[in-house]
Amino acid sequence: MKFTEGGVCAAKGFSASGMHCGIRRGKTKEDLSLICSKIPCQGAGLFTRNQVKAAPVLLDMETIKNESFHAIIANSGIANACAPHAMENAKKMQKAAAAALGVEETSVLIGSTGVIGVDLDVSKIEAALPELIGLLAGTPEGSDKAAKGIMTTDTKKKELAVEFELDGRTVRLGGISKGSGMIHPNMGTMLCYLTTDCAISKPMLKQALKYVCDRTFNRISVDGDTSTNDSLIILANGCAGNTPIESEGTSFSLFCDALLMLCTEMARRMAADGEGASHLITCNVSECESEAKAETLAKSVICSPLTKAAVFGCDANWGRVLCALGYSGESFDVDSVDIQFASAAGTVDVCKDGKGLNFDEELAEAVLKEPEVIINVTMHEGTEHATCWGCDLTYDYVKINGDYRT
Amino acid sequence: MKFTEGGVCAAKGFSASGMHCGIRRGKTKEDLSLICSKIPCQGAGLFTRNQVKAAPVLLDMETIKNESFHAIIANSGIANACAPHAMENAKKMQKAAAAALGVEETSVLIGSTGVIGVDLDVSKIEAALPELIGLLAGTPEGSDKAAKGIMTTDTKKKELAVEFELDGRTVRLGGISKGSGMIHPNMGTMLCYLTTDCAISKPMLKQALKYVCDRTFNRISVDGDTSTNDSLIILANGCAGNTPIESEGTSFSLFCDALLMLCTEMARRMAADGEGASHLITCNVSECESEAKAETLAKSVICSPLTKAAVFGCDANWGRVLCALGYSGESFDVDSVDIQFASAAGTVDVCKDGKGLNFDEELAEAVLKEPEVIINVTMHEGTEHATCWGCDLTYDYVKINGDYRT
Repeated sequence: MKFTEGGVCAAKGFSASGMHCGIRRGKTKEDLSLICSKIPCQGAGLFTRNQVKAAPVLLDMETIKNESFHAIIANSGIANACAPHAMENAKKMQKAAAAALGVEETSVLIGSTGVIGVDLDVSKIEAALPELIGLLAGTPEGSDKAAKGIMTTDTKKKELAVEFELDGRTVRLGGISKGSGMIHPNMGTMLCYLTTDCAISKPMLKQALKYVCDRTFNRISVDGDTSTNDSLIILANGCAGNTPIESEGTSFSLFCDALLMLCTEMARRMAADGEGASHLITCNVSECESEAKAETLAKSVICSPLTKAAVFGCDANWGRVLCALGYSGESFDVDSVDIQFASAAGTVDVCKDGKGLNFDEELAEAVLKEPEVIINVTMHEGTEHATCWGCDLTYDYVKINGDYRT
Repeated sequence: MKFTEGGVCAAKGFSASGMHCGIRRGKTKEDLSLICSKIPCQGAGLFTRNQVKAAPVLLDMETIKNESFHAIIANSGIANACAPHAMENAKKMQKAAAAALGVEETSVLIGSTGVIGVDLDVSKIEAALPELIGLLAGTPEGSDKAAKGIMTTDTKKKELAVEFELDGRTVRLGGISKGSGMIHPNMGTMLCYLTTDCAISKPMLKQALKYVCDRTFNRISVDGDTSTNDSLIILANGCAGNTPIESEGTSFSLFCDALLMLCTEMARRMAADGEGASHLITCNVSECESEAKAETLAKSVICSPLTKAAVFGCDANWGRVLCALGYSGESFDVDSVDIQFASAAGTVDVCKDGKGLNFDEELAEAVLKEPEVIINVTMHEGTEHATCWGCDLTYDYVKINGDYRT
């Protein structure tokens, strides 16, 4: 099992494209993406649990119940949420893409990301479709364009692929995603589209997606704001030619491992490229009585604005970490908690048995200056563990979000 | 019922003082405060629900069970939380103050605020006590010094008093508090000390404090971080000479109203002076099916980093308000929600029935430039309402917290 190139085009039978269609005014950046499979796919999706859901999410939640999928089309710039004609426009976008591709409307999934409350001008998408379809390519370049088309305030493209062997066949699994702001997924994150040529049934695909999402995208947070548009979709076209996975077993476990490997790195990159971020913060909570509790504790740490600001300032203010554990809602023995900061520059033990240790401030600062800062919390109460990922709170987060809409 | 001068010294029989005793190194700002009553008081207190509690909180939680109180002593600079000798030092501080005042240890409450994880040097407090007691004054100046002694990153002193008539007697109720960072109270806020000369029994005092705290301090948030040290304490010495309040009824209601008036304004000032804040954000959720639900919704709005950053940037980005309502955990009909921004500069309706309205962007910007921005949310589902208060997220919040400890 290893990482490979090609993003959503790594899996056989998939092609992708991206272009600027004019939704983002006065800019030339790609704002429209398309992912297609030449043969029908199985599909599974997870969507935002925000009570306020964007129209593409509501539409996809219905569409994903179908049996066969051909394409995903998504735009950036306008979220198509809470706008006067949101659902009407979502349907129009789905219909136009299906017609242009010559497939059933029920086999096309859609996505939008951007400003909330503004109507999406679907005529721009309709006009761009012939060119967008013409640009479709089953190459790394095709995936690259599609990855760019869904970016908003992201500074880095998120595109990854993994390959592994199954029944003597090479199976590939790839994806593109966008994150940055309003990231506190309560399902999958913002927009993330995955493709695989693995032959796998819909129920097993759904089970794998849920299992992995809970351990990856649902364990990151940039700012605690759960978006209205979060969508995580996977399409599987079976082109790898493996024996179809239809139940739990070795093959299913292998597929889950590959999906976990892909999504863990995707989630980490999303956290690392959080709006304004200068540090990826990884919090490992170990020796905990349950995985769920470890997750709650770790998430409380990576969500604490004070801890995030301290990491930005390279300040080993572990008291804020302990404080965040304390208000997580979980009960624990404060006098058994150990805290350590770690990074490529070394490790510093800062708290033992819930009390501060004397530590080398210079080393601590060096540890905190690295791009990835790891906070290791040991609970000394059990054998379970969980990891969550976040980013620091910086001037740039405030800058980006102080004037995003206008 | 009206506001008056004198803070904690407005109530008859109380005196206060504050001075620099050296806990905050190299600074001359007051870092030690004392509040005394010349006769024994009834007392009630509410403390942080953070699982990690500072030693003064743990000690006060025991002390407050006693029947009679004389004084509160509090320091800033060191939080006396999670430090190797935290509880030992808390007890030493209580004992030293009691001895210097010539009262029982069991009648002295203590408080600390500042850096977590560092031992408090109580010898500095012991050395300062004679001078601190000598400075005690039942005047506005005494309260002023005590209010300053508990300030940390606060930029404004929080000190207020209210007076009202009861049984033909004037009753006074005053307080001092400090807030600024790590403010997301889950009881009272950080340090808030209230005094009254009202004659009232301990159970009724406690009931009033709980009622008011839930509607004031528990409805503000600066950064979502619940501190380890939050303490809200009220002392009542009965010097006003009213018929003692020993049950519910007109007098008790009047006392609660006065306490609510005092604490509402205290809480508002704490939110307005949140770390780095340039705007007080008031969110009113009305026509809701329950007060608890309205509170949850309003709190979700004032805690949303994206909404807070938008207000900082004077950007009428109401989509973020609707998004925050959506992830609050409460269910509601999105298509019945109205949102309005209001301030001293006017009002702007931005969302009707869950959908965006065309609005005057210039007026919106003018409305958002005022120091207090009001977000009115109408749910159209019931008759209950609640108000929560927060502040915007600014560069200065990041600056203050990026390098607080060192």
